[in-house]
Amino acid sequence: MREVAIIGTSITKCGELWETSFRELIAEAGINAIQDAGIEGKEINAMYIGGMSTGSFIGQEHISSLTVEISGLNDLHIPATRIEAGGASGGVALHQGYLAVASGLYDFVVVGGAEKTTDTVGGETTEILSSMSDREWEAFFGATFPSLYALMARYHMHYHGTTSEHLAKIAVKNHYNGSLNPKALYRRKITIETVLNSSMVAEPLHLFDCAPVTDGAAALILCPLDKATDYADMPIKIAASSQSSDTLSLCRRKNLDSLLATQKAVDDAYKKTGYGPSNIDLAEVHDCFTIAEIMALEDLGFVKKGHGGKAMDENLTELNGSIPINPSGGLKARGHPLGATGIYQAHEIVLQLKGKADKRQINDARIGLCHNVGGSGGTAVVHLLEVT
Amino acid sequence: MREVAIIGTSITKCGELWETSFRELIAEAGINAIQDAGIEGKEINAMYIGGMSTGSFIGQEHISSLTVEISGLNDLHIPATRIEAGGASGGVALHQGYLAVASGLYDFVVVGGAEKTTDTVGGETTEILSSMSDREWEAFFGATFPSLYALMARYHMHYHGTTSEHLAKIAVKNHYNGSLNPKALYRRKITIETVLNSSMVAEPLHLFDCAPVTDGAAALILCPLDKATDYADMPIKIAASSQSSDTLSLCRRKNLDSLLATQKAVDDAYKKTGYGPSNIDLAEVHDCFTIAEIMALEDLGFVKKGHGGKAMDENLTELNGSIPINPSGGLKARGHPLGATGIYQAHEIVLQLKGKADKRQINDARIGLCHNVGGSGGTAVVHLLEVT
Repeated sequence: MREVAIIGTSITKCGELWETSFRELIAEAGINAIQDAGIEGKEINAMYIGGMSTGSFIGQEHISSLTVEISGLNDLHIPATRIEAGGASGGVALHQGYLAVASGLYDFVVVGGAEKTTDTVGGETTEILSSMSDREWEAFFGATFPSLYALMARYHMHYHGTTSEHLAKIAVKNHYNGSLNPKALYRRKITIETVLNSSMVAEPLHLFDCAPVTDGAAALILCPLDKATDYADMPIKIAASSQSSDTLSLCRRKNLDSLLATQKAVDDAYKKTGYGPSNIDLAEVHDCFTIAEIMALEDLGFVKKGHGGKAMDENLTELNGSIPINPSGGLKARGHPLGATGIYQAHEIVLQLKGKADKRQINDARIGLCHNVGGSGGTAVVHLLEVT
Repeated sequence: MREVAIIGTSITKCGELWETSFRELIAEAGINAIQDAGIEGKEINAMYIGGMSTGSFIGQEHISSLTVEISGLNDLHIPATRIEAGGASGGVALHQGYLAVASGLYDFVVVGGAEKTTDTVGGETTEILSSMSDREWEAFFGATFPSLYALMARYHMHYHGTTSEHLAKIAVKNHYNGSLNPKALYRRKITIETVLNSSMVAEPLHLFDCAPVTDGAAALILCPLDKATDYADMPIKIAASSQSSDTLSLCRRKNLDSLLATQKAVDDAYKKTGYGPSNIDLAEVHDCFTIAEIMALEDLGFVKKGHGGKAMDENLTELNGSIPINPSGGLKARGHPLGATGIYQAHEIVLQLKGKADKRQINDARIGLCHNVGGSGGTAVVHLLEVT
């Protein structure tokens, strides 16, 4: 397998982008990524695009072909593949794109993700999101995503003493980071009281414990590492790309305080590289709810199981902490454009490793981790990105 | 790249399977394919599953994780990836599974497809199918899939003298083949009059020019060719696997009598193998409408452009013709289980190459072609399968 690098990235602003269509989002992200890489469209060999529920949101499936057309690459007739893995669609698309280059099959691959969640034709958003959980054993009985993560939060609180204040500190940190990110949806700082006084969505999760779904699109350009310097001044190496799975339904799992798919994916990534949690300088993790970031801290090995809440008391995960988490603002403040989220995470890590993250820059960042989850942990993807 | 073989296959019956759920379909196809291959579940390294509009049909996305759970493979935490490419979802899943084994990354990969189109929660089927076309430039203006293929039929008739009788002969042949296939949806023979007297759906396409969407699931087990004989008495080699794309919308194409994505995919497959149309003993092609089979005959090189209709007057494509097409009954008579269709095609070719196709067996079949199309040709996949 060849080593693979990221030579271009782009994201659109996250938000309720009423005046921007799905195809405009794709065009903006795709063209800017190609320009960032300094390649020509005709050099592209294949495309992988993550989209979560485009059929339900905007009545448009088959977005691979649409993306080829919008990008003006249809005359190339390149293979274009849409990946769906719930909120991990972007991460899985990146994994597949990585494999396509690493295997020697293709040299230049576009990996993207796009989702249009506002201004949609497909009905109620909560109902659409429920399609990522187990329709027959969870959603039909009324379980929404907040309620599934609320079960995990309750479990974590019961067994590990995690508190609502710990959860709130995740939101406060991520909103602070988002305030420094011009592409973030939420750019206002909040306090612990903001979270604790916000409406209860699914006890113990308040409104401010939940990440907002947003519109957005993002794209990366991948190529073999040994060709990367012909294009990028500072190519970023994909040191590891690992994808894992678990049961779709929570009721089939042995416990609710961990995502085994995350643990398996990161174990693979650490084994492949010889790195461990102490080598990681920063991470973008899948904080679809505040409890999810607590579990990610533990499952990724940054703190011991059960210590995720306590880590928040020690400010370990702030921009200047020992392991900064979600410098972009995370799903919570930058926004969660569903099928594109995994690509947004990689974009942020690339910016940080290149020293281009402006006011939220982590000093001396050399190795970053991306952690993207589908549903309530039925899919997890971990990428380790590294300065070369 | 390593050579790849198919060592196990399985399909469920096609039909309106009111008493069988989506997950039961997946379980039946998956378990039977694993048994057919003679492997154990724990040997499986990865899974690719095609599903077209499961979110809209049954409110269930994230079917990769669901499939892992249903198969009882969740403890393995293997990468499981859902592919969506309209009606080519199954073919693209097979292409990705092929690449995963060919690259040396994985040894044993399950490739499947599943769709539940009856007994659904998601509203009107025609509307859901329109999600595979261009929502903004086609569907919003009232263009349904039959009307898009009707445009192609009109164009073909105008420029090449193709007639409604030519189209009807496709349906008659495929229904005859379906009458010999116990897993087919339609098992009654029809006549040219049956087609011409049936309701007009979108002029010139009658009801019997249109393939029925059905429920169904199918699975294949892939492994490296050099390990295949440890498992299968008669492994079938994937001699070529090619995926291509084109514009999503018809209005962006230069002409309407060809699918350029099909031509590009089959050219790649022929180049890779050194084979040409004359080497192919039989083919399963994407006859979502009768005109689609006419175009496929031409685009795949079996007859010259414009001669697809005339080929029907010469009975070239019957079971005992020079190039038997759709011995299974095709999408038209076996049924079109959307995201699973590409896998059904491969299953039929494997049966034929192994001499196990019973009453519809093609004599001395050694090389077979599968041709799977998404939407109105925005995606096309061609596989060449071969006796080793």
